[in-house]
Amino acid sequence: MDNDWIDEYHEGVRYGLKGKVIIKEFSPYQEIAVIESERYGRGLLLDSCWMTAEKQEKHYHECLAQPALCGAKNLDKILIIGGGDGGTAKECLKHKEVGYIDLVEIDSKVIEICQEYIPTIGGNAWNDPRLNIAIEDGIKFVEQAQQDSYDIILVDGSDAKGPAEGLFNRDFFENCQRILKPNGIFATQSESPEAFLKVHIEIINLINEIFNYSDPLYGWVPMYPSGWWSWTFAAIDKPRYLNPIKRRVDCIEQNCQIWSPRWQKGAFQAMPAFIERGLKK
Amino acid sequence: MDNDWIDEYHEGVRYGLKGKVIIKEFSPYQEIAVIESERYGRGLLLDSCWMTAEKQEKHYHECLAQPALCGAKNLDKILIIGGGDGGTAKECLKHKEVGYIDLVEIDSKVIEICQEYIPTIGGNAWNDPRLNIAIEDGIKFVEQAQQDSYDIILVDGSDAKGPAEGLFNRDFFENCQRILKPNGIFATQSESPEAFLKVHIEIINLINEIFNYSDPLYGWVPMYPSGWWSWTFAAIDKPRYLNPIKRRVDCIEQNCQIWSPRWQKGAFQAMPAFIERGLKK
Repeated sequence: MDNDWIDEYHEGVRYGLKGKVIIKEFSPYQEIAVIESERYGRGLLLDSCWMTAEKQEKHYHECLAQPALCGAKNLDKILIIGGGDGGTAKECLKHKEVGYIDLVEIDSKVIEICQEYIPTIGGNAWNDPRLNIAIEDGIKFVEQAQQDSYDIILVDGSDAKGPAEGLFNRDFFENCQRILKPNGIFATQSESPEAFLKVHIEIINLINEIFNYSDPLYGWVPMYPSGWWSWTFAAIDKPRYLNPIKRRVDCIEQNCQIWSPRWQKGAFQAMPAFIERGLKK
Repeated sequence: MDNDWIDEYHEGVRYGLKGKVIIKEFSPYQEIAVIESERYGRGLLLDSCWMTAEKQEKHYHECLAQPALCGAKNLDKILIIGGGDGGTAKECLKHKEVGYIDLVEIDSKVIEICQEYIPTIGGNAWNDPRLNIAIEDGIKFVEQAQQDSYDIILVDGSDAKGPAEGLFNRDFFENCQRILKPNGIFATQSESPEAFLKVHIEIINLINEIFNYSDPLYGWVPMYPSGWWSWTFAAIDKPRYLNPIKRRVDCIEQNCQIWSPRWQKGAFQAMPAFIERGLKK
């Protein structure tokens, strides 16, 4: 069969990859599809929205993980909410200092399908004894977790609708703040300043109210709406995400495609004028 | 008639806007089309590639023009190569200090169609007595221009194929260097580091050989392939584009949507690791 176009539609815009659907299934939470694309290798869609692809995953996973992993005081205990494709876990496990990771994914089907059809995104993470997978609702998980439990919390969820909706509100962020160690770092994807302007600004303002220090970082994920993406980092004792620790940088830098200390410094500065004017003072 | 999808295709990827084609004509150089889109207002395509749209033009024009206009010693004489939609000229003319602009566009039909169907992109520039339009080949124009003629040269051409192909080679850049005043600034769009990786690196390396100072700047134009875009700035006596002059910033800052001194500082730093490794040392 010839390849066809598979598109994500968003408010009068579509972004399509030429390829073939190789599996499409429904879980209790969402539709899960994997395609073989000509340009980016295998790609994952949830509810017809692009999540990741083999040759594009570093654009997202490095940017979410490395500013946090390179800046936190310790890397003993890491929590990932979502991240069922394994890419964020793989990115964390580049660091030898990591003690263990709790990966809390609500949808076991996402993990099963990614392990079977796109195993390269999680790579060795799936076999690393430091990775503990919990099939649970991340919102309940952070409610029940003990205070000061984690050195790093990374929220790797889909858009602020469907199963990920509760990952972008005050209760959730307050629980993350409570269970984060005082010298740790919190990070979440915070949507596109272009395609999801309203929710982007809401996320930044909320996190800014709840944590002592917070800053959005701007990058690119070509397959996401507008291609322009953001992640927001937060901390309690000081803005540790702004200052990568040299021994950690040395450990991972050659193994990164987008991220570098230089890139990160620029990406934290590159806030467009209309967002700077739109944020609460 | 219902709206339909109008797509640009690029190596197994497509980016489409929902809308209606309102005019499509052939000039001696290319196919020119204007659409009415639901999300971004009227948009221009040349040879089926997205050029600009009413609600997205600032992503491109501010980033090409303002680092140059805010940094050059003087703004007496400006040269724009290409730029037939008028957006770069409008961006320059925000500055009261501008003496005059030579806009050298090869295709008169692009100007005619933009003036008639998307007049907002050029806006008042089309009626500003400081704007001189020359319908000429930009490559020949820079060959014939006198040494030290311009304070600013902005190359606002389409991709490195078709009529714009000669805007990305050594002869052209050397002529630009020759006709630029020693305290001026040269800038060109330099393609996507993702969708046009090879030509992106070639442009940066060439400009770096020809000018004493040069730096790429990274931003976003959602409608271009990958959404991730770059512009490269160059200068002769010092890297003036890095230091916006305060009185110029004060004159235009409130009137910019993407550009600000903060954004610019970040955008010059935000070079991804794979490009930093790919450039000549």
